[in-house]
Amino acid sequence: MSDFNQPVSGNDLARFAGLQTFMRLPDVASAEGLDVGFIGIPMDIGTSWRSGTRFGPKQLRQESAMIRPYNIQTGAAPFDSLQCGDLGDIAINTFNLADSLSIIQSTYEDILNHPVIPMGLGGDHSLTLPILRAMAKKHGPVALVHVDAHADVNDEMFGERETHGTVFRRAYEEGLLVPSKVWQIGLRGTGYTAEDFTEAADWGFNQRLASSLWHKPLDTLGKEIAASIGDHPCYITYDIDSLDPSFAPGTGTPEIGGLTTMQAMELIRNLRGLNIIGCDLVEVSPPYDTTGNTALTGANIMFEMLSILPGVKYR
Amino acid sequence: MSDFNQPVSGNDLARFAGLQTFMRLPDVASAEGLDVGFIGIPMDIGTSWRSGTRFGPKQLRQESAMIRPYNIQTGAAPFDSLQCGDLGDIAINTFNLADSLSIIQSTYEDILNHPVIPMGLGGDHSLTLPILRAMAKKHGPVALVHVDAHADVNDEMFGERETHGTVFRRAYEEGLLVPSKVWQIGLRGTGYTAEDFTEAADWGFNQRLASSLWHKPLDTLGKEIAASIGDHPCYITYDIDSLDPSFAPGTGTPEIGGLTTMQAMELIRNLRGLNIIGCDLVEVSPPYDTTGNTALTGANIMFEMLSILPGVKYR
Amino acid sequence: MSDFNQPVSGNDLARFAGLQTFMRLPDVASAEGLDVGFIGIPMDIGTSWRSGTRFGPKQLRQESAMIRPYNIQTGAAPFDSLQCGDLGDIAINTFNLADSLSIIQSTYEDILNHPVIPMGLGGDHSLTLPILRAMAKKHGPVALVHVDAHADVNDEMFGERETHGTVFRRAYEEGLLVPSKVWQIGLRGTGYTAEDFTEAADWGFNQRLASSLWHKPLDTLGKEIAASIGDHPCYITYDIDSLDPSFAPGTGTPEIGGLTTMQAMELIRNLRGLNIIGCDLVEVSPPYDTTGNTALTGANIMFEMLSILPGVKYR
Amino acid sequence: MSDFNQPVSGNDLARFAGLQTFMRLPDVASAEGLDVGFIGIPMDIGTSWRSGTRFGPKQLRQESAMIRPYNIQTGAAPFDSLQCGDLGDIAINTFNLADSLSIIQSTYEDILNHPVIPMGLGGDHSLTLPILRAMAKKHGPVALVHVDAHADVNDEMFGERETHGTVFRRAYEEGLLVPSKVWQIGLRGTGYTAEDFTEAADWGFNQRLASSLWHKPLDTLGKEIAASIGDHPCYITYDIDSLDPSFAPGTGTPEIGGLTTMQAMELIRNLRGLNIIGCDLVEVSPPYDTTGNTALTGANIMFEMLSILPGVKYR
Amino acid sequence: MSDFNQPVSGNDLARFAGLQTFMRLPDVASAEGLDVGFIGIPMDIGTSWRSGTRFGPKQLRQESAMIRPYNIQTGAAPFDSLQCGDLGDIAINTFNLADSLSIIQSTYEDILNHPVIPMGLGGDHSLTLPILRAMAKKHGPVALVHVDAHADVNDEMFGERETHGTVFRRAYEEGLLVPSKVWQIGLRGTGYTAEDFTEAADWGFNQRLASSLWHKPLDTLGKEIAASIGDHPCYITYDIDSLDPSFAPGTGTPEIGGLTTMQAMELIRNLRGLNIIGCDLVEVSPPYDTTGNTALTGANIMFEMLSILPGVKYR
Amino acid sequence: MSDFNQPVSGNDLARFAGLQTFMRLPDVASAEGLDVGFIGIPMDIGTSWRSGTRFGPKQLRQESAMIRPYNIQTGAAPFDSLQCGDLGDIAINTFNLADSLSIIQSTYEDILNHPVIPMGLGGDHSLTLPILRAMAKKHGPVALVHVDAHADVNDEMFGERETHGTVFRRAYEEGLLVPSKVWQIGLRGTGYTAEDFTEAADWGFNQRLASSLWHKPLDTLGKEIAASIGDHPCYITYDIDSLDPSFAPGTGTPEIGGLTTMQAMELIRNLRGLNIIGCDLVEVSPPYDTTGNTALTGANIMFEMLSILPGVKYR
Repeated sequence: MSDFNQPVSGNDLARFAGLQTFMRLPDVASAEGLDVGFIGIPMDIGTSWRSGTRFGPKQLRQESAMIRPYNIQTGAAPFDSLQCGDLGDIAINTFNLADSLSIIQSTYEDILNHPVIPMGLGGDHSLTLPILRAMAKKHGPVALVHVDAHADVNDEMFGERETHGTVFRRAYEEGLLVPSKVWQIGLRGTGYTAEDFTEAADWGFNQRLASSLWHKPLDTLGKEIAASIGDHPCYITYDIDSLDPSFAPGTGTPEIGGLTTMQAMELIRNLRGLNIIGCDLVEVSPPYDTTGNTALTGANIMFEMLSILPGVKYR
Repeated sequence: MSDFNQPVSGNDLARFAGLQTFMRLPDVASAEGLDVGFIGIPMDIGTSWRSGTRFGPKQLRQESAMIRPYNIQTGAAPFDSLQCGDLGDIAINTFNLADSLSIIQSTYEDILNHPVIPMGLGGDHSLTLPILRAMAKKHGPVALVHVDAHADVNDEMFGERETHGTVFRRAYEEGLLVPSKVWQIGLRGTGYTAEDFTEAADWGFNQRLASSLWHKPLDTLGKEIAASIGDHPCYITYDIDSLDPSFAPGTGTPEIGGLTTMQAMELIRNLRGLNIIGCDLVEVSPPYDTTGNTALTGANIMFEMLSILPGVKYR
Repeated sequence: MSDFNQPVSGNDLARFAGLQTFMRLPDVASAEGLDVGFIGIPMDIGTSWRSGTRFGPKQLRQESAMIRPYNIQTGAAPFDSLQCGDLGDIAINTFNLADSLSIIQSTYEDILNHPVIPMGLGGDHSLTLPILRAMAKKHGPVALVHVDAHADVNDEMFGERETHGTVFRRAYEEGLLVPSKVWQIGLRGTGYTAEDFTEAADWGFNQRLASSLWHKPLDTLGKEIAASIGDHPCYITYDIDSLDPSFAPGTGTPEIGGLTTMQAMELIRNLRGLNIIGCDLVEVSPPYDTTGNTALTGANIMFEMLSILPGVKYR
Repeated sequence: MSDFNQPVSGNDLARFAGLQTFMRLPDVASAEGLDVGFIGIPMDIGTSWRSGTRFGPKQLRQESAMIRPYNIQTGAAPFDSLQCGDLGDIAINTFNLADSLSIIQSTYEDILNHPVIPMGLGGDHSLTLPILRAMAKKHGPVALVHVDAHADVNDEMFGERETHGTVFRRAYEEGLLVPSKVWQIGLRGTGYTAEDFTEAADWGFNQRLASSLWHKPLDTLGKEIAASIGDHPCYITYDIDSLDPSFAPGTGTPEIGGLTTMQAMELIRNLRGLNIIGCDLVEVSPPYDTTGNTALTGANIMFEMLSILPGVKYR
Repeated sequence: MSDFNQPVSGNDLARFAGLQTFMRLPDVASAEGLDVGFIGIPMDIGTSWRSGTRFGPKQLRQESAMIRPYNIQTGAAPFDSLQCGDLGDIAINTFNLADSLSIIQSTYEDILNHPVIPMGLGGDHSLTLPILRAMAKKHGPVALVHVDAHADVNDEMFGERETHGTVFRRAYEEGLLVPSKVWQIGLRGTGYTAEDFTEAADWGFNQRLASSLWHKPLDTLGKEIAASIGDHPCYITYDIDSLDPSFAPGTGTPEIGGLTTMQAMELIRNLRGLNIIGCDLVEVSPPYDTTGNTALTGANIMFEMLSILPGVKYR
Repeated sequence: MSDFNQPVSGNDLARFAGLQTFMRLPDVASAEGLDVGFIGIPMDIGTSWRSGTRFGPKQLRQESAMIRPYNIQTGAAPFDSLQCGDLGDIAINTFNLADSLSIIQSTYEDILNHPVIPMGLGGDHSLTLPILRAMAKKHGPVALVHVDAHADVNDEMFGERETHGTVFRRAYEEGLLVPSKVWQIGLRGTGYTAEDFTEAADWGFNQRLASSLWHKPLDTLGKEIAASIGDHPCYITYDIDSLDPSFAPGTGTPEIGGLTTMQAMELIRNLRGLNIIGCDLVEVSPPYDTTGNTALTGANIMFEMLSILPGVKYR
């Protein structure tokens, strides 16, 4: 245990004190020697309704100070098993979405020269496209667990092909994904046509409407996904707006009738065993998160994903 | 499809832009030629605890800009089937509740000279009494689906007989309703006596306490109501405080232990087939809606009610 | 009925008017003649993350003005059965936690010279330790229903032995409790080690993780607890952070994945029949309660606990 | 000194504790024996833009807990000189503006049977009309210091003659005022015509536009008013929207370019010596007072007015 | 008077009701026949710190409902003199800053085919560059009154040459301005070097640091500017962050020590007589405008600029 | 210049990105080699009204990201002249005020072993007492510039001798100050007796009531203080509540009628030349700072104090 970075304890330094890194881990300059690297991607220029996600990484880090190192409900002890650190934020170009996506991709390609699992703190969902490009470059087409209110499979928005609403169509077209191992969970809301989602189903994507999951534990679904993906390299992208706005009001495009945080935890906990190569948590918008609890929820979901990474010991 | 008004598309004009009508429909001066007319009734002088609902119509319209025209979960395509428009707001007298109720009634009577279904955006719940008077004048006593935390069957409040807490006693007394076809769903909270609700049950009203619905899908209840009402002309009045405050904090008299938005959608979707003659959504209070999500929820419930109107096509 | 204090009616004086006592009961100077005494304990110097609970009693009283005297869902009519009053706030020493705990204890010892059930409005959870000392002095070791996200069984925090995180270890060590009649409900979150909770289980405490209760009504659990405790003198301490942050955002150390208010009410209602000697409701933090609804929830939980006190009539 | 009610000291009971009366004075049932009686008038049904002032009295009392008894800047020691108490709130009819005005008048007439100076906590400005009626009934036509952004001399609003915008025209018409001893300070904003204010000037009202006072101390103006009014019975009505919105954001009809709190204090302090027979402070709207500081400002202005009442000793 | 569009009166329709256009003017489809056209430019992708200005036009319109047609302090009666209308919002491309600037320019070029004065509602300050391009195309190099905390004369930001911080360097380089007739008022804050502002001074720009204006009326400065510019075609761009954050908290890059709203009004009122060809009001960010008063201030500044347009009659 | 730490530039890394240190300076583990060390002291257990200042250091750092390195208004270039770093937060004991004060003192004593000027980020004002103890131990009795609404010279509060209201009486009694070189600026509010402030005047303290400074630039006062103190070692303690609540709403004990930020900057800038040995900025309370602008103001005042430290070059 002493070989690994530990979060600063709340009994050594009050939780409202100290450097604002994710879960109070050390701030590190490089992914060298890390098993897991948290990395902020502060941007909101890919959003279509409310903005504000540029402050997401800061707020996720602030609220993560509440999380202690041991997962009481599952027994996971990630900091006894993995070397974790906070890699800081990517220097995106806040005036140019296309350039920012390119910067994200090259930063990820650099990081992936190390055998590290990057865990991205968003930022709006457009950031996942360049990450998937970097992932596929290293691993080939990947499996994907995509928890979200929206399928994000539009073709264009205002003539642009790379926004937070077109990510997974582009990823499909570019061959970054294994379609039969793509799972989209929590879809709902409204659309422009009857085909808004179904075209992606035709590509092979597995989709679950939120309304089909209401009132149900998600353990079974988690297990079904885990079985379907097996040991294929798998990326998890978690959009906080998959949650119902009662649980996560602080986001840019909320849709009523979503998942509960209980379902979110059930789902993630049952993905344990997957060959996870990276994760992100996106779309927390602090200006609309009036109590900070959306960021708290995002930070906890991040911790749940950390708890199921390959190599984590359970007690 | 080209024959009907369409909401301005979010790909033509960013959702945060444009005229603030309900769902970005055209602003129309008259109900002539409309199948459905949205109409604001901005008032809060009938409230007994927190005020603020006078800004409800504005906020409902603002948040409705997020809703796209096609209901992905049910397949409803209301704008392919019905001619919809936004009729603006009623010019109530904000210093005089009695006069305002009278203005609402005469405005509705004018509108009902056309074969249009009016969908009212409140405003406090006292507005439903003059609407029911206008409805009964045209249709005779009506069936009523009343989703609310409160039965609103007080006799008097401070000596006044027409307030947001006395609506349905007055409607009953005046013969505006078919009591056996009145359904009050979501009742809870506290009362002055053991008889606060039960007297209305004696009139024939069907009541469901929220606590009897906890943890349950409402599909069955919806079907039961639909069967009970049959094709009798039916009005739906939806008080946002029927929802639990975790889902709808921005309201004037919140009561814990309420419905979920999932239940609200299940209930409404299963009312499809009713002979609906009008709807309202009341008691959204923007000053207490710190994230805008209560108004967003209200706008979506409005859209769900629109989706089950007679004549709506499903795909 | 006329023999008992009644809350000021909302039809005599608007709910937003009048003296701000709990549920608009009379402000009384002494517990003499009371069956139930509400008492504020305004403090936050025992908190470890967000502060603000010093304003909890004020906000609980403000929001309690919405509650009417009769519990519609259960039939309880507490004000027809018991003499209730508001005893005001304890004059704690806001600069000294240890001294404040001592003041609370002596104040409670004075109150307990009367045959009254004190219902404490917190304030941070450290206030429960001196209350239990006073209770045990009068009644001997007590049974405890402890609803909370946290077990509060740390040994020390920053070298201090009496804080909001160490209450129940101290109470156990001092013999204030009957361990086999201690029930801790709603535990979750994260911890420092695998033993954070389990040591208390070894003492005999009955613990239920929140995750074991997700999606379930709590009637059965309530009955199980009632049977286990029987007619032993029983204290109930209700930490508002037992609720999920979607239901109670305004608290100092929120943890996702908590109880619902529906579960909270089910649990309490099924404890009817216990020999309750005191209750408290703690950790409402108004600065983080942006809509007032956390305090509203806390006030309602207080009313639900009042409704099951020995001697309350049901109609 | 021991003969007079004293505010509860912050060193005896923490300021965030205790009964919420104005400045922590005793809650009294009658004006008998009082020199000064604080009285809440919780209403907002006379407002034309944002509502919420119904919670004004509660919030003014909450924030007044910060005020200590001695006015350091002026030397005034009101509680060493006058018997003060909090008379609670008037039981207005929240559903009927006209009836509420009538209730206010009769309540004031009762109070004025005692030789007490009533200090009203609003509430919207329509409450001042019935107060002036009661004042004039006892004292004859009165002098008036009216600090406000608006002249409130409209004839009608929506056909109503008694609203928060018509108060001083009605008072003039009914002969309640000595026009040459009426001072309207802080007027600004926009109007319907060039005559909006000037007609009142023709009646003899003395008006000072806010823009004529920018950048200037108001000592001189205060002295000018004092000299003009002399020892004629004088009523002061202070609308919080006279202040610039930077100082008092929490109000219903804010207008930019207003007075500063420094000017407000200079003005009031220089009115010392007037034969004041009553005061009110109106239009604090808590839902728009996001920090509580508008209410704090209102409570302090109330204290400044208290400090210049006839009989107050200075040290 | 009857020849011109009038704002809907607050006595005909309550101010919280009605279509949300600027000052309740008619919504018009074209600039044809207009003297003045209000036009929204909803964007925030050019901002470098807090975002949110994309909702600026909506919020400015909402708060403008409080403004009545006659300027009481100056006597201006713009709606008796000019034909005004609301042209709606420009359909910018929210995912691409460069494309949005191009769309703004072409939209303005179209509008300027009519003899109309466009008054732009921002949006972030990058929108002023394409407007100046369109203005210069029609009028040749223009005079400029630029009220702002920042000079916005950076060369590049993240390699981008067109952002909200580079506007006036680009405008200078492109010859859109008459440098000796450019006035930058209210500059302050901090910079990267000693030359951040002074280079622009060398170009001939007239600059006034906010600190040189503290405690002073701005009448004299207004007159000095008016004299300097004479009857040269003049554009006014008003950045709300020129105001001190106490007056305008709801903006993206606030700087302490700014102008007061009183100074803002003095400045504008003394520019009367200029040959104004267009105006804009930028950088209102609703998510940070917790009371709505920043937008209210922005709307009033817009009205003050309207009041000094060529042709406005005074009474 | 290259010899000194520089803040991360906003053109290298967007201001909303990066490690949250004060002004984006390097995070350093020791004061070794520093000329200036920023240090957080996160506490609120010494406050008497609203709490929340425990989050002050975090929020001051967050908002400081807006400040660029060069002071445009004065020409100061502190980062070209001094080696600056962020020393992180002191590990106070959040459950024990007395212990926390002791920890602060010993931490400061350690820091003062280096020739560094510590700049403390509060936290409530009780933290200044242990700092003065450490300062006097090294420098002997010090001169003091104390900008505050309150004199903080109470003898006891609830029997405690060391709280945020007793600091400067204790410092006087312990001989930590040169009384004739103590300046208390901005005093106002209310008190318990006529002697609340004057006793300290008798000790030799120089006091300026806020009301004596209204409407006036503070250049002259700054120069007077500088002359009075000369080159005696001088500590500056800046309580954010010295500012009027319109400028700094986010604080625990606001008092109306305070200083403006313009006056604050004038005062500090005219203290240039003093032999400053340390500074602090206290009482920013983020839960009441709804827009973040109080923290922004505090961070700027910190920067102004940095700009006048001995050795800073001006350009």
